[in-house]
Amino acid sequence: MSRDNLSCLLYGPGQLKFEHRPVPEITDAHDAIIRITYVGVCGSDVHFWTHGGVSRKVSDEAPLVMGHEASGIVHAVGSEVTTLKPGDRVAIEPGFPCRRCKLCKAGRYNLCRGMKFAADPPSTHGTLTRLFKIPADFAYKIPDSLGLQEAVMVEPFSVAIHGVRLAGLQPGQTVLVQGSGTIGLLSAAAAVAYGAGSVMVVDINQKKLDFARTFVECKTFIPDASSTPEANAENLRAVAGLEGGFDVVLECTGVESSAQTGLFASAAGGVFVQIGMGRPKQSLPLLDMCEKETTLKTAFRYGPGDYEIALELLAAGKPSVKSLISSTSPFRDVTEAWEKTKRGEGIKNLIQVTEE
Amino acid sequence: MSRDNLSCLLYGPGQLKFEHRPVPEITDAHDAIIRITYVGVCGSDVHFWTHGGVSRKVSDEAPLVMGHEASGIVHAVGSEVTTLKPGDRVAIEPGFPCRRCKLCKAGRYNLCRGMKFAADPPSTHGTLTRLFKIPADFAYKIPDSLGLQEAVMVEPFSVAIHGVRLAGLQPGQTVLVQGSGTIGLLSAAAAVAYGAGSVMVVDINQKKLDFARTFVECKTFIPDASSTPEANAENLRAVAGLEGGFDVVLECTGVESSAQTGLFASAAGGVFVQIGMGRPKQSLPLLDMCEKETTLKTAFRYGPGDYEIALELLAAGKPSVKSLISSTSPFRDVTEAWEKTKRGEGIKNLIQVTEE
Amino acid sequence: MSRDNLSCLLYGPGQLKFEHRPVPEITDAHDAIIRITYVGVCGSDVHFWTHGGVSRKVSDEAPLVMGHEASGIVHAVGSEVTTLKPGDRVAIEPGFPCRRCKLCKAGRYNLCRGMKFAADPPSTHGTLTRLFKIPADFAYKIPDSLGLQEAVMVEPFSVAIHGVRLAGLQPGQTVLVQGSGTIGLLSAAAAVAYGAGSVMVVDINQKKLDFARTFVECKTFIPDASSTPEANAENLRAVAGLEGGFDVVLECTGVESSAQTGLFASAAGGVFVQIGMGRPKQSLPLLDMCEKETTLKTAFRYGPGDYEIALELLAAGKPSVKSLISSTSPFRDVTEAWEKTKRGEGIKNLIQVTEE
Amino acid sequence: MSRDNLSCLLYGPGQLKFEHRPVPEITDAHDAIIRITYVGVCGSDVHFWTHGGVSRKVSDEAPLVMGHEASGIVHAVGSEVTTLKPGDRVAIEPGFPCRRCKLCKAGRYNLCRGMKFAADPPSTHGTLTRLFKIPADFAYKIPDSLGLQEAVMVEPFSVAIHGVRLAGLQPGQTVLVQGSGTIGLLSAAAAVAYGAGSVMVVDINQKKLDFARTFVECKTFIPDASSTPEANAENLRAVAGLEGGFDVVLECTGVESSAQTGLFASAAGGVFVQIGMGRPKQSLPLLDMCEKETTLKTAFRYGPGDYEIALELLAAGKPSVKSLISSTSPFRDVTEAWEKTKRGEGIKNLIQVTEE
Repeated sequence: MSRDNLSCLLYGPGQLKFEHRPVPEITDAHDAIIRITYVGVCGSDVHFWTHGGVSRKVSDEAPLVMGHEASGIVHAVGSEVTTLKPGDRVAIEPGFPCRRCKLCKAGRYNLCRGMKFAADPPSTHGTLTRLFKIPADFAYKIPDSLGLQEAVMVEPFSVAIHGVRLAGLQPGQTVLVQGSGTIGLLSAAAAVAYGAGSVMVVDINQKKLDFARTFVECKTFIPDASSTPEANAENLRAVAGLEGGFDVVLECTGVESSAQTGLFASAAGGVFVQIGMGRPKQSLPLLDMCEKETTLKTAFRYGPGDYEIALELLAAGKPSVKSLISSTSPFRDVTEAWEKTKRGEGIKNLIQVTEE
Repeated sequence: MSRDNLSCLLYGPGQLKFEHRPVPEITDAHDAIIRITYVGVCGSDVHFWTHGGVSRKVSDEAPLVMGHEASGIVHAVGSEVTTLKPGDRVAIEPGFPCRRCKLCKAGRYNLCRGMKFAADPPSTHGTLTRLFKIPADFAYKIPDSLGLQEAVMVEPFSVAIHGVRLAGLQPGQTVLVQGSGTIGLLSAAAAVAYGAGSVMVVDINQKKLDFARTFVECKTFIPDASSTPEANAENLRAVAGLEGGFDVVLECTGVESSAQTGLFASAAGGVFVQIGMGRPKQSLPLLDMCEKETTLKTAFRYGPGDYEIALELLAAGKPSVKSLISSTSPFRDVTEAWEKTKRGEGIKNLIQVTEE
Repeated sequence: MSRDNLSCLLYGPGQLKFEHRPVPEITDAHDAIIRITYVGVCGSDVHFWTHGGVSRKVSDEAPLVMGHEASGIVHAVGSEVTTLKPGDRVAIEPGFPCRRCKLCKAGRYNLCRGMKFAADPPSTHGTLTRLFKIPADFAYKIPDSLGLQEAVMVEPFSVAIHGVRLAGLQPGQTVLVQGSGTIGLLSAAAAVAYGAGSVMVVDINQKKLDFARTFVECKTFIPDASSTPEANAENLRAVAGLEGGFDVVLECTGVESSAQTGLFASAAGGVFVQIGMGRPKQSLPLLDMCEKETTLKTAFRYGPGDYEIALELLAAGKPSVKSLISSTSPFRDVTEAWEKTKRGEGIKNLIQVTEE
Repeated sequence: MSRDNLSCLLYGPGQLKFEHRPVPEITDAHDAIIRITYVGVCGSDVHFWTHGGVSRKVSDEAPLVMGHEASGIVHAVGSEVTTLKPGDRVAIEPGFPCRRCKLCKAGRYNLCRGMKFAADPPSTHGTLTRLFKIPADFAYKIPDSLGLQEAVMVEPFSVAIHGVRLAGLQPGQTVLVQGSGTIGLLSAAAAVAYGAGSVMVVDINQKKLDFARTFVECKTFIPDASSTPEANAENLRAVAGLEGGFDVVLECTGVESSAQTGLFASAAGGVFVQIGMGRPKQSLPLLDMCEKETTLKTAFRYGPGDYEIALELLAAGKPSVKSLISSTSPFRDVTEAWEKTKRGEGIKNLIQVTEE
């Protein structure tokens, strides 16, 4: 077995090693092996880099190959694979469910307890590796109109699509997006692609909001940090010209005061989707929600159909994500990309694992 | 205009007067006038009796006829009314929406901002009155199998039906009901009527739980007050034999720790419905919800179809609600019924306004 | 009562009279009186002009004011109307439901048996009249960006929106539209507005298809009249590059062979919506539908929310409908507009009732 | 490899052979091997026995093991199977989807094109065999309260559950079931389990209807063969006391006139589900459907969750299916059971493959 599969492993907070790991081999006829080209840096990577994990952590005994936002080129396929062939350019969906449990069968595989998600401790290795084995149906062929760098964005855009689909967003509805990081920006774009009548993006950072308006047709709003969520919500409605509030709220910050503001700002019968993750317990305005029959949904990654829709929309330039890609670091300089993201530089920083 | 319409008005906390108010007259051809027979006492009546209102309060300048759970006999109908005739026995839906706003037209009239709900300050009078005028389509003819006392229960049972319908409860699903007051008991019964595979009722009062088991097929559970919601939830799952948690949770207490327990106890992809109302802000386990993609719905009263379903089920004895009716006080002794309810005596205490 | 309300009445096939009818007066505080500016000609008008009606017909004893696609300017409003004021430019939703039946309350007022729809025999008069009384909530204020001629198109576009909403169309889905008359064109545009991944329009008229491609981004297809529906469906799939078939089919012709083709061409789990109306009984490929679990929905006019969405999209130029307006005839030349439409000239022919 | 696996194969119409086929071995760690106890006879078996197949047929070159309604006892399990152990009594879901296609992942595996369904020509063998290999997640452990004979009924009851779920049946709704064969009876029972307010069963056979009333709480109706579907529908509504028609129609005959009657009898906004399969093309009252916005759904076998619900309800005696089991033939007398079913004797005839 060849070991010429250079990979980037985390052994603990700040402890990184590049190792030559075994080259994967096709053992299941439905598998494919992908030569990874680009991997995106996500906030969770930075959290791992700093803390070594969330509840489950990497360690000297259980180091982990990092990375989960990835694109690549098909290197080999199993004998039963008909949808891909070597040389195809693909976007990678990095979580592989068991396919056998009740949730998998019912069309909610993102909730599968047997999910093997890339770079999830202790033992599911990620995509910061030259050759990555994957069930072929989780590698999505990309059209010529989409570059391999942009293809990395299918992953975060699928998060946004999943949230918008959970919201049941209908054309003409008014949408509030909280947060203008990568997920907030892409959620706003997803809302536009689903026909939103108007989109309002909220953030505490003016520069981010300025960028948001260049990225997607939207209004923007900075909440008053010295004011209550209820007062900010009232102000938001006024600025949006929506006396009744927003039909759909997409919360992409994970911050408690932001969730409160969003809930107060939502319309009677509205839907609020928690996409961002933050503190385990958060205080929510439950009485106001009851009086308006707010539906609060919570989004976890992406599920059936999300990748297909995200890919189709990106291929059609809805949105064009080139402007989100801020930098590309060579594989060996992965820590540079992580540190940049940690410092809040750029929107999406990429790591180039192999040549296109 | 005759003023022989004896009514019970609240002028402030503890300040009650019986007055002869004007006898209502048919002015709209779609109206009906109902001679009220029974009115049920609800926790909100007791709150008004004690505090004079919630946010909006009654006053000497704006006294209010109390009461909203009611049954009666049709006294007169307008010329366009074809569904009722004098002498018909009816259950009363006590809130009248505008019928013209977007929410009314879209089938969510319970969220109508123009709603006129019985005994809602400052000016919408309630049903503790001999003759009550109502749009005829909000008076529901009851079948012979249902008594006028039981017909009062259509109102709280509609609350339960509304909650169960919001949950999208499917036969075979596992259901957790939190609280075994009137709404909790009726929600458990509604869950059974909707085919729940199993129902677990939680309360801190053993006697109430003992009654619950006689009222509806269920298991019961007392949470450990010295334990955390997370630990109680784990215990609940174990007692129910549901490793994965409950498919549907119906929260009927409005208590924060109960909501937390219910959310921790819910299954991946589960639905939690907040039916009870409590403190305006409550801390909820948002991260756990995100990881399970919990849907949190909030229920406000009842809407299109709820009364019809509630009535149909009660008429078929699903459930039989006779055992819930604890006492019947004469009209002039309304405070006796309120005080009983305040002291926690009985389940549903009735006031008899006129003879059957 | 003034009778200066010039109106165009049909007394029987081909029998038209202009009469001065009573000027309407506000009797309900929620009413509005609209000065009609433009009325569009619909296929059903032409059918009435030729046959005097469908099942119920006009007659000498029961002549009828014609017209139901209309725009106008608010002339007067009742005392309770807050959403409109004299001078406002409006699009008119021409059917007024009872608001009291189970279907109205449940959010399906288009199915109300008490519906009063403009120009519906024997006695509900239409919009070919100078002053038209309407419940104010069925007159929709149009933004400055929309002309009064284009506002007539809100009615047929609402038909399309209703169909697309029934289909539950999701972004990225593949859509087949059968027929490229007004409703077919607008359905294709609605599909695009809802994010359709691709739209294929089918008609037997090459010129209409050529226009379709200028109106909306779509592919087009002419079925082979000498071939079977099954073979045409197979061909359609091949041309569209969709081995699995179309996710959504919008049938806008009412022709049996077209419905058959559409059903054969739909994907497993697909949705087919019958928007066009044709022969009362039609032979459908039920076994093929069963094996694919096709859902067949049928659309009747428009319901809650459709007008708002249609108006919002038209105001945003999605689509621009100017190119659909083929001619404008003076009020007195209404038969000219009907005859043009009968001969298949133009797409939407308008009648100008009063000056803008 | 042992060949001691006695199996019943069809080689062509009327051509049956018992053969000793290879004993299956666990090759996938998620598989289980079931010792079959009982197999039910379905109308499709009889069709195969008479015609050798439907579109694809068995032949001397491609004989097929018959049978698909089955129960059994776990004989062996693969190393990854945690839900079953040898000796467990199980109901068998006899179709195994690919788990990888878009439809499988989206929760509609019954529409999977790669489905391997028992006794489906040319090469997917059925359950009339002593030892049957199956993915373990398609064998459902049955509770002690359910006999192995009754467990055979989980298969047809899942068909009924699937239909009722497609209908979105809500408590209190009025239901029309067309046909009182096994599927019709079980659909009526499923409707009751889902809380139907009333159930009307239609058949042309009085004796079958007499049995239906003993099996499930329902009214029954014999259509007038000399009358039109429209007239029969009107009569049906009158007998049911439903001026507005039935909320839900479950068509279990596959006969064109029955579908027509059911569609005419359905209420405005109603749902009609085609469960029975019949002639490939059928004439349907499309105009009446459009005016009522009827939704026509088509049901194909069963999908995610159906077996679980069916099993749970049968275990709870909703319904008790003992009375449906008419005879039990020894394995070698399989033709006797088929001939009985062909002659219309009994409701469900079983074949005993091995001892319990």
